[in-house]
Amino acid sequence: MSAVPLRRARTVRVSVRDAIGRTLAGPIQAIEDVPPFSRSRVDGYAVIADDVAGASQEKPATVRVVGEVAMGAAPPGPIARGQAMRISTGGALPPGADAAVMVEDTEESDRIATVLDASDAESNITRSGADVRRGDLLFDSATVLTPARVGMLAGAGIDMVDVYERPRVGMLLTGDELVAPGDPIHPGEIRDINRFSLAGALATMGFEPVQYDRVPDIRTAFEAAFKRAIDECDAVVISGGSSAGERDFTPDVVQAAGPPGVIVHHVRAKPGRPTVLGAVGDKPVIGLPGNPVSALVMLETLGKPILLRMLDRKPNDVPVRAILSQTIDVSPTLEHRIPVALHRDDGEVRARPLFGTSAMMHILAFADALVTVPLGVGRIDGGTSVDAWPLSAPPRP
Amino acid sequence: MSAVPLRRARTVRVSVRDAIGRTLAGPIQAIEDVPPFSRSRVDGYAVIADDVAGASQEKPATVRVVGEVAMGAAPPGPIARGQAMRISTGGALPPGADAAVMVEDTEESDRIATVLDASDAESNITRSGADVRRGDLLFDSATVLTPARVGMLAGAGIDMVDVYERPRVGMLLTGDELVAPGDPIHPGEIRDINRFSLAGALATMGFEPVQYDRVPDIRTAFEAAFKRAIDECDAVVISGGSSAGERDFTPDVVQAAGPPGVIVHHVRAKPGRPTVLGAVGDKPVIGLPGNPVSALVMLETLGKPILLRMLDRKPNDVPVRAILSQTIDVSPTLEHRIPVALHRDDGEVRARPLFGTSAMMHILAFADALVTVPLGVGRIDGGTSVDAWPLSAPPRP
Repeated sequence: MSAVPLRRARTVRVSVRDAIGRTLAGPIQAIEDVPPFSRSRVDGYAVIADDVAGASQEKPATVRVVGEVAMGAAPPGPIARGQAMRISTGGALPPGADAAVMVEDTEESDRIATVLDASDAESNITRSGADVRRGDLLFDSATVLTPARVGMLAGAGIDMVDVYERPRVGMLLTGDELVAPGDPIHPGEIRDINRFSLAGALATMGFEPVQYDRVPDIRTAFEAAFKRAIDECDAVVISGGSSAGERDFTPDVVQAAGPPGVIVHHVRAKPGRPTVLGAVGDKPVIGLPGNPVSALVMLETLGKPILLRMLDRKPNDVPVRAILSQTIDVSPTLEHRIPVALHRDDGEVRARPLFGTSAMMHILAFADALVTVPLGVGRIDGGTSVDAWPLSAPPRP
Repeated sequence: MSAVPLRRARTVRVSVRDAIGRTLAGPIQAIEDVPPFSRSRVDGYAVIADDVAGASQEKPATVRVVGEVAMGAAPPGPIARGQAMRISTGGALPPGADAAVMVEDTEESDRIATVLDASDAESNITRSGADVRRGDLLFDSATVLTPARVGMLAGAGIDMVDVYERPRVGMLLTGDELVAPGDPIHPGEIRDINRFSLAGALATMGFEPVQYDRVPDIRTAFEAAFKRAIDECDAVVISGGSSAGERDFTPDVVQAAGPPGVIVHHVRAKPGRPTVLGAVGDKPVIGLPGNPVSALVMLETLGKPILLRMLDRKPNDVPVRAILSQTIDVSPTLEHRIPVALHRDDGEVRARPLFGTSAMMHILAFADALVTVPLGVGRIDGGTSVDAWPLSAPPRP
C-alpha cells in the first residue's frame, strides 16, 4: 500500500484561534523576532554592564537615573555611560543599555541609584530574538498544532495559517441484521456498533466521517453505494455485515471500481484477518471486517497509517513502555493484537492484557492500548517490558 | 486546595453520536444483553453438541437439516435431537441448538449433513450476554467516552447519555503591552501568547474557554472584570501581564471577592513561582504568571487537577516511562519542570530535555511532555528512567 500514490488533503487558511489540532499544510517561518526588542527580566534599572561590573555591598557602583521606561512604550531615549533608567519586568531596554539590576539590589536617592549587587545583571535581560528570530523555521509542514504551538505562532506575529482540510472519509456499512440504538429491535437483529465506534475513531484521528445509509446485502446496491461514496469522498471505509456470501462483495467491487484496486486481501492478523486494503485512483479504500472489535483494531493499526498519508502524517511513533502484568500465550501463526489496560503501580507503568474473543466489545472499551505479538512469536512472558500503542482517543488530560 | 468544595459541572443529555470525548455524569448500565441471543460464529450448521460430539473423518456424525436461519430474522423454529439448521456467521441459534459446525467440516446431501470434525462446535457460538449482560455496570461515572466506549454503548442499546457540560472557564488576561497577532505592533509592545495557548489548553482539557477583553493594569478595572467573570463563568483563569506593581492585584482581588479566597500564593516551583490558587464560593480561580511558559506549565500541572474536579475527573495518571537522554542539573531549592521531546530509539523511548529559560516559548512548542525534578533533588543523570507527563494536546494518532 505504501507505494500507491494517495491524494493530499486540500489546504484551508484558518485563524490561529481555530487552529488547535489542525495539521500545518506547509512550513511556517517566524515573521518577527520574539521578543521584538531586548527586555528586562526584572523590576529595577536598565544599565550598561560595564558601569556596574563587580558591584557589591562593599564596593557599590552608582549610576544616574535619567528616566523611566513605561510598559508597552518605547524607551524615552538612550542611556550613556554612567546612566540608568527605571524599568519593569518586560520593559524595553533603552538604546545603550545591555544589562539590568534588580530593584532589591539597589538604593535610590536624589536620582542616583546605588548598585549593591550586579552579578546577574547581564542575565537579567532577554535579548531581542532570543526565543525566535524573524525568518527562523518555526514548524515543519505536517506539524500538528498543540496549545503551545498555537501560542508560539501568535507570539511570532502569525495570525493565519494554512492547514489541511479534514479529509472526508465515507463510511459504507452493510449488515441487514443491524439496528441503531433507540430503534425497536426484533428477534435475530443486533445493535449496530461500527457506525458509532468507527465514526468516533475517524473523527478523533482528524478526519470528517461521512455517514451513508446502511447498504443492503445486495451486490448491485453495494456497487452503487460504493460508486457514490468514492465520488463524494476522499477515502472510503467499508465495514461488512456478518452475513455469508455477500461478505465478499468488497474486494470484487473495489477491484472493479478502477485501478489500482485491491492491494491487500486478508492479513495474517488476529483480530482482522479478512481486511481489504486498496485504492481507487488516489483515494484509499479500507475494507474492515464486520466484527466491531476486528473493525476498530484494523482501522487503528492498518487503516490509520494509510488515511493519515492524506494529511502527510505518520501515526504516533512513541509507544508507552509498560511491564506486561500477565503472560500472553497465543498462536504464533498469526500476528495478534491484545488490548491492554494501562495503570501505574509502584512507580512502574503496567499493561494488563484483557483477554477475550473478538465477540467481546467490552474488552476494547476497557482497553487503553494494544500490544502486538508478532508473527512467529506467540508468547510474551509476564514481567516483560512491552510497547503499548494507545488507541485513538480524545485527549486524556 | 483539595479540601475546598468545588462545583460539579451541570449535566446534559446527548446522543451517543455526539458523545465522543465527553465525560459521563453518572454510571451506565446495559439495558440489553449483548449479543441479545446466542449466535453462530461460523457459516455452517446449528446443531446440538451431544449429537456431534467426537465426530471425525473416520467416525462422522450425521444430522438432518430441517431448515435455515435467515440473517436478521428469528429462527424458523427449534431443532430436536438429530436435527440441524443451516446458519451464517451471526445468525441466531434456533432453540435447542447449543453448538455450530463449520460448513468446511461438513458435507450435505439430501438434507443430511455429515459432520467430519466437531472439535470446535461448542466454541463456534457466542452465547447471549457473553459480551455484556442486561443490568451490568458498563461504565462508572466520570468515564471519558472513547470510540470503543461509544460503540459499546450503542451495542448495548443505549442511544442517549448524561454527560457533563463543559465548564465555562473565564480567561482574564492583563498586560498593557500585549498585542494580538495581525494587529499593528508599536515599540515596547509584544505579541500576546497566553490568550492563544491557554485557550487551546483549556479546550483540549474539556473546558469552554470564555474570552474577555484585555483588562487594563488598573486595580478598579481588574476588580470589575474579575467580578463579571466570576459571575458569568464556572471558574476563572487569570494571567498577569508583566508590568510591575499592578501584578499583585490578583491575590488581593481574589481574596476580597469572597471566601475561601486565596489558598495558595507562591509555589516553590520553576517555572511558575508567583502562581495563585484559590476559589470564590465553589468556583475555582487559577492565577497564572504572565510569562507564557510559566503560565502554560502551571495550568498543566497545578490548574488542571483543580479544574478537572468540576468534571469529577483526575488527570491522566499514566506517564510515559522514558530514558533521559541527557543529565538534568538544576537548583534543588525549587521543584523544576523540564520540557522534554519524546522519541523512539533502538526500541526504547527516550526523553530529551529541552533546556532554556522561561522566556523561550519555542522550548514548550517543541516539547511533548514534562519531567518533574522534585524539591531537594536537583539532578537526574542521563540514562535514568523517568516519568514524562504528556502536555495536553490534541490526540496524537
